[in-house]
Amino acid sequence: MPTISKRGTLMPNSPIRKLVPLAEEAEKSGKKIIRLNIGQPDIATSDKALAAIRNLKATVIEYSHSAGMISLRKKMAEYYHKKCNIDVSYEDILITTGGSEAITLTLLTCLNAGDEILVPEPFYANYYSFATSADVKVVAISSHIEEGFRLPPISEFEKKITSNTRGIIICNPNNPTGHVYSRAELEQIRDLVLKYDLFLLSDEVYREFVYDGEEFTSIMHLDGLENHAILIDSLSKRYSATGLRTGALVTKNKQLRDTALKFCQARLSPPYVGQVAGEAALDSSDEYMSYVYNEYLARRNFVVEALNKIPGVFCSKPKGAFYIMAKLPVDDAEKFSMWMLKEFEHNGYSVMMAPGAGFYTEGNLGRQEVRIAYVINLEQLAIGMKCLEEGLKAYPGRILKENAAKINVALS
Amino acid sequence: MPTISKRGTLMPNSPIRKLVPLAEEAEKSGKKIIRLNIGQPDIATSDKALAAIRNLKATVIEYSHSAGMISLRKKMAEYYHKKCNIDVSYEDILITTGGSEAITLTLLTCLNAGDEILVPEPFYANYYSFATSADVKVVAISSHIEEGFRLPPISEFEKKITSNTRGIIICNPNNPTGHVYSRAELEQIRDLVLKYDLFLLSDEVYREFVYDGEEFTSIMHLDGLENHAILIDSLSKRYSATGLRTGALVTKNKQLRDTALKFCQARLSPPYVGQVAGEAALDSSDEYMSYVYNEYLARRNFVVEALNKIPGVFCSKPKGAFYIMAKLPVDDAEKFSMWMLKEFEHNGYSVMMAPGAGFYTEGNLGRQEVRIAYVINLEQLAIGMKCLEEGLKAYPGRILKENAAKINVALS
Repeated sequence: MPTISKRGTLMPNSPIRKLVPLAEEAEKSGKKIIRLNIGQPDIATSDKALAAIRNLKATVIEYSHSAGMISLRKKMAEYYHKKCNIDVSYEDILITTGGSEAITLTLLTCLNAGDEILVPEPFYANYYSFATSADVKVVAISSHIEEGFRLPPISEFEKKITSNTRGIIICNPNNPTGHVYSRAELEQIRDLVLKYDLFLLSDEVYREFVYDGEEFTSIMHLDGLENHAILIDSLSKRYSATGLRTGALVTKNKQLRDTALKFCQARLSPPYVGQVAGEAALDSSDEYMSYVYNEYLARRNFVVEALNKIPGVFCSKPKGAFYIMAKLPVDDAEKFSMWMLKEFEHNGYSVMMAPGAGFYTEGNLGRQEVRIAYVINLEQLAIGMKCLEEGLKAYPGRILKENAAKINVALS
Repeated sequence: MPTISKRGTLMPNSPIRKLVPLAEEAEKSGKKIIRLNIGQPDIATSDKALAAIRNLKATVIEYSHSAGMISLRKKMAEYYHKKCNIDVSYEDILITTGGSEAITLTLLTCLNAGDEILVPEPFYANYYSFATSADVKVVAISSHIEEGFRLPPISEFEKKITSNTRGIIICNPNNPTGHVYSRAELEQIRDLVLKYDLFLLSDEVYREFVYDGEEFTSIMHLDGLENHAILIDSLSKRYSATGLRTGALVTKNKQLRDTALKFCQARLSPPYVGQVAGEAALDSSDEYMSYVYNEYLARRNFVVEALNKIPGVFCSKPKGAFYIMAKLPVDDAEKFSMWMLKEFEHNGYSVMMAPGAGFYTEGNLGRQEVRIAYVINLEQLAIGMKCLEEGLKAYPGRILKENAAKINVALS
């Protein structure tokens, strides 16, 4: 029997999806599972997108241009201009199969096998997977829950720069932390990028979800990054349509675009219906956008308050996206999450969370943390929070408050 | 300015799409271009698929399971069983974003960077691109137009096997040659695969289009390949829905599937609507399937006859798929194809073809060949064939019959 590749062996299981089999087992036994692990909103997809699908005119579902439909690209350029104060032409935009493909294409285009990319951690776990696919090494710079996951000092980045460092990837607003990078933080990153001539990938798919009057700054708002900046985008979160798989790679670097287009040509085209629906979604009403925004705001407020009321639990109040990293009074958050699915129930319910360690690369970081996606309605969230509270009381690996500080030291 | 990656630089332009800018220029000047370069059929998409899209029930377009919707996978298993005599369970099937992604995932899962894969040439040009993306080296074994592109002797494969050889990829029925591998040819490949413990990828997306009573054999029909065989599939061609981007990776090798699934999890899920439409398409009526089949048969018969009537042009009669490789009496088929777009017109028309050299890796092979996709209606094909005939008369780089043999020798 031929052996599997090294990269296939190295490829991690998704921390977001790895507990799914346990949840399915639990459901078979009759337990109801509240899914806090995955960013799959229960919010209705924009009716503009749904109508475009149901009114599809085409009789031949054909390949589009490899760079995406021109009408969609023009509409996106208009959206960037009008809604985001980002000045790009449609030629700067390549449509991709979700933001996922945009990241993969950028890594393949900009980095060689063996090159390194810097990422503040915790980070969206699939960055590590995309890098592994491309034989790229992820070098993490740790941020911390106690500091609200703000940008680590630039000196920490500089310490990790080697002759193989070719880029930095950030997610803003951040998945999994909810941190929104300030303009000052981004300018520090900009200066570093220019000093070392690096590519800067910025995943900004959550830009519409910024709370408490925080100002959102895009890397496309910063001067001097024309040849360095790659904006990663997706329509999935904005219009609650994750299954569309319509994303974008946006850059003013023509050589980068021309090269990425060769990879696009190989896979022929992004999905046709996703593009038609995406183009229509860009006309979503202000009412729809406000409704979605207010839903997430209410859910965030509820979850932050509920979490911080549970003895021993800590989370900061994230300013963006729809995730929270929470620190739990447990020996190991993955063990706890598995125990919750296998051993625990409260009134017939339990919860599935994404273990925090999967969002870090460094040793024991995140071992007491979980990522919670507040993408389900308040009623479900309330059941989930109650389950978590009761589960923590019953969990044999619970850490008493007086021991927590010691364990923290031991883990770090 | 940071530099582009080596693999990005090495990535070839698609021979199928590289002349598109010239065609667009020609159209701007008022010329009508008959597109024979790309496998984009003008045949209506299966009405079952269109109806499923227009009747979409979902109000949230959500992620599916990373392996694809279970209902689609079950339906595909049933299709394989009933229509193809292939015995697989739904668990053996991973749904992918087109056949393209199935190939990429297989390469990443089975081969390390620097490993080699054997491919009979001419081959579907994007295999080279997918391999370049994965830092895999393509090693070609040449087949020849004069021999109807039959499988080269197995000894030619064995000569090229090194310690880095990890797999073989075939396309059956073949794009671009139309060759349908006989069971005897496939058994030779099977024996080679087992002798050297290689993976065998078989791209069988054209299996429905086999003519003249030729029998189609799948690698899944051969004994002993359970751990070696990977079937690459797509619904795009069968139901004339290339833009759906719904394909599949099918294998009985569980370790391979489990590993490929980790790559699937990273990109979250295949397109939702494409899966719903694909599942419906599997119920397409026998009438629809016969209609599509008969269209391609009539088009093939017309094109083969028309081509062989043009002085100096040669093509064999392909038994499958919807492509023909034709040898033209020209100095260089790419130069000729460009000249046709830039300099020539007949009654306001010209044709775009895919230059043959892009389907070969070896030196000058295919320099007198073009790939023609007979995916447009007979009327358009007739205009295209007439244009080609007149263009060949007028082309300054035409090779007179008496010189053709000499030039062949010089080129080879």
